Amino acid sequence: MRAADIIIKKRGNPTPQPLTKEEIQFMVDGYVAKTIPDYQMSAFLMAIYFNGMSFEETAALTDCMLHSGEIINLHGKENLGLKGPFVDKHSTGGVGDKISIPLAPIAACLGVQIPMMSGRGLGHTGGTLDKLESITGYKVALSPQEFEQLIAQNGYAMTGQTQKIVPADRLMYALRDVTGTVESIPLITASILSKKVAEGSDALVFDVKYGSGAFMKTPAAAENLATSLVKTAQAMGKKAVALLTDMETPLGLKTGNYLEIEESLECLQGNGPKDVMELTYALASRMALLAGKVASIEEGLELCKQAVNSGRALEKFLKNVDDQGGDSKKLLEQQGKRRSPFHAQLNAESDGYLKIDAYKTGIACINLGVGRNKTSDKVDADSGIILSKVQGEAVKAGQKIMDVYAKDEKSLEEGVAALKKAVSYSKTTITQNKLILKEIK
Amino acid sequence: MRAADIIIKKRGNPTPQPLTKEEIQFMVDGYVAKTIPDYQMSAFLMAIYFNGMSFEETAALTDCMLHSGEIINLHGKENLGLKGPFVDKHSTGGVGDKISIPLAPIAACLGVQIPMMSGRGLGHTGGTLDKLESITGYKVALSPQEFEQLIAQNGYAMTGQTQKIVPADRLMYALRDVTGTVESIPLITASILSKKVAEGSDALVFDVKYGSGAFMKTPAAAENLATSLVKTAQAMGKKAVALLTDMETPLGLKTGNYLEIEESLECLQGNGPKDVMELTYALASRMALLAGKVASIEEGLELCKQAVNSGRALEKFLKNVDDQGGDSKKLLEQQGKRRSPFHAQLNAESDGYLKIDAYKTGIACINLGVGRNKTSDKVDADSGIILSKVQGEAVKAGQKIMDVYAKDEKSLEEGVAALKKAVSYSKTTITQNKLILKEIK
Repeated sequence: MRAADIIIKKRGNPTPQPLTKEEIQFMVDGYVAKTIPDYQMSAFLMAIYFNGMSFEETAALTDCMLHSGEIINLHGKENLGLKGPFVDKHSTGGVGDKISIPLAPIAACLGVQIPMMSGRGLGHTGGTLDKLESITGYKVALSPQEFEQLIAQNGYAMTGQTQKIVPADRLMYALRDVTGTVESIPLITASILSKKVAEGSDALVFDVKYGSGAFMKTPAAAENLATSLVKTAQAMGKKAVALLTDMETPLGLKTGNYLEIEESLECLQGNGPKDVMELTYALASRMALLAGKVASIEEGLELCKQAVNSGRALEKFLKNVDDQGGDSKKLLEQQGKRRSPFHAQLNAESDGYLKIDAYKTGIACINLGVGRNKTSDKVDADSGIILSKVQGEAVKAGQKIMDVYAKDEKSLEEGVAALKKAVSYSKTTITQNKLILKEIK
Repeated sequence: MRAADIIIKKRGNPTPQPLTKEEIQFMVDGYVAKTIPDYQMSAFLMAIYFNGMSFEETAALTDCMLHSGEIINLHGKENLGLKGPFVDKHSTGGVGDKISIPLAPIAACLGVQIPMMSGRGLGHTGGTLDKLESITGYKVALSPQEFEQLIAQNGYAMTGQTQKIVPADRLMYALRDVTGTVESIPLITASILSKKVAEGSDALVFDVKYGSGAFMKTPAAAENLATSLVKTAQAMGKKAVALLTDMETPLGLKTGNYLEIEESLECLQGNGPKDVMELTYALASRMALLAGKVASIEEGLELCKQAVNSGRALEKFLKNVDDQGGDSKKLLEQQGKRRSPFHAQLNAESDGYLKIDAYKTGIACINLGVGRNKTSDKVDADSGIILSKVQGEAVKAGQKIMDVYAKDEKSLEEGVAALKKAVSYSKTTITQNKLILKEIK
């Protein structure tokens, strides 16, 4: 086998031909082993960008990437309390998207076991690990033994990916980033799925976002990705379902690192914003359904409400905080009080129906200190925003729209200036997108 | 400027945008200077493969590649006898294509000055330099001074490209070869044209071949390339014309290195095969027309005949042989006698109308010793074939079709076996392609 021939087969000579598993394996294994150089891999990735991949090819690519590193196997450990099925959720990323944090304890209350591996913030979107680390002492780098033990004890645990998981994706993603080959549905699919499958899940629920604050700007693009994720996961023997959800405007009222932990706490205390609750319940019910713990979505939704109303989900969350090195008592004491001293209030500049753009809000939050401009940047725990008004509400000039918190004076100034551009005022009422547009299964 | 952004602009986000000269220059200069790595260039080349380039972009690419190295300027040297206009011919390569060798002295007789830079054999196609080197003592690596002096004295000189001409093309071609990005019309165009323009020509005549023995298999593909070459050359301020010519069957009766020198000599002695003469005259007339030396193709054709019939073209050729280090007297003495001792005769296996496939003949000739399997292989001067019958002729079983000469016994055996597969016998008459299908200007 020669890499050049495989590139030409995918490129078309003149018509592209489907690649075999062996050909895909030759490319991925060779790339990881450095017998296939960067320049052949980047040409190959660009050919995939243009000609796509079938679900079978994408599944083969995912499987090859998956096997480039360590794979967690939670099965056969019933004696430790790991009963399965193991179900995880993956969101394609948005602004104010703290769903994983209330979701995991709620789904765990429904009997699902959740090996949740999360990532850092990327660009204008937040990252679950960054948020969790705002809890003083909370440890997101668990050993495989700690991870398994906590899932067995509490139904879920939250950790970051180790360097040993899917090294092929790390290498390929870095190359894609500099060669214009990021925006390819099969490559995005393989990147997401290889990591999720390596974590040992039997079933996956995807939250595929569309809109200004999402990587997929249109419902059509999001649906393509959602279909690819679900069909490819199924081709790999995993149960999977995806929801297409709105990301035109931030989720919930609070965006930040600690601020999203606080809002998650509110959700678990029964005081969460409507949109966050709706999405959390919708995703948790589907996790329970895939795990065979409920017979219908309706039953799942009902059990979610009970888990929150009974205080069991909150209890699970607080136990997780303590188990992973945090201090739940202190967390509860801080609630509503822990705020950065670098504060400003943003008031409406004119009368109208409020529009808050998710992407611009996310970019403004980077300025405040919530996110990163470069991978090496540190995030600030306490910066962010608290909305008093949300998109679609009627406001009067001078009325408070949000509180803004930054890591320092300069960031506050830049962040407020950017947030002013994220907000606009419509003379006519705004037709809000449905939060959950569609389900793909 | 960032390479990744330029790649994405050509790739499309979602629609590809035409690149500016500055963007193309950034890529080419950066690649030669090694500030842009191979992996970005290969992704860029693949994006060009898929999305193409306008003639303006191709001209900009050609111009940037051209300026990556030394450019020969023959103008302003009238005192040396370099009057111009300078016109060269380029063939996309075929089997038995020795046209440059009789063409240059004939066109020189018409008053054209020809700075002819040729290449080595590539794959199944022969190379003018390899053929010229079969003339004992003939030197194909002229210094710029020698090159200029010989053109001034004799109207033409034959040399190889120096390492200093278009280094960008050498680097990019090596990369294209291993990344599945060879077969791109704008990239082929820029590769050919950058070298031809760097050689100092004011006008160019292209012989773009199609058929089994050509790189372009169909007339449509050849026409695309011909149009791109002509329009891009014109966009760069050069006069240009292209002929689409048949390469289904070898050109002339003799294929080899020395054997093609011998056939060129026959052409200049007035005994050339009909197809070789027709193509040589057609190309030489167009060179003279572009140089303003004749008013019409018809006048050019008439002057070509006179140049040959008067013996002036032969004289020019023999003078060039002596000037470039060969021995014209010895060359004439060898004519019809210089043959490899490893000889076989191929006879018709059945009655029928003969078909001789150019590609298969070219591959068989590599076996005999004419061409190379790897770049580092040496070619053999005396191996090759002499056809007694050509495609379309009726043959009887047992009748001689060709004499076969090889570099050794083993090569002869392999070559004859391969040649048997290059020849077939049709029960019905064969419709021959027109040698010159079309002119593109």
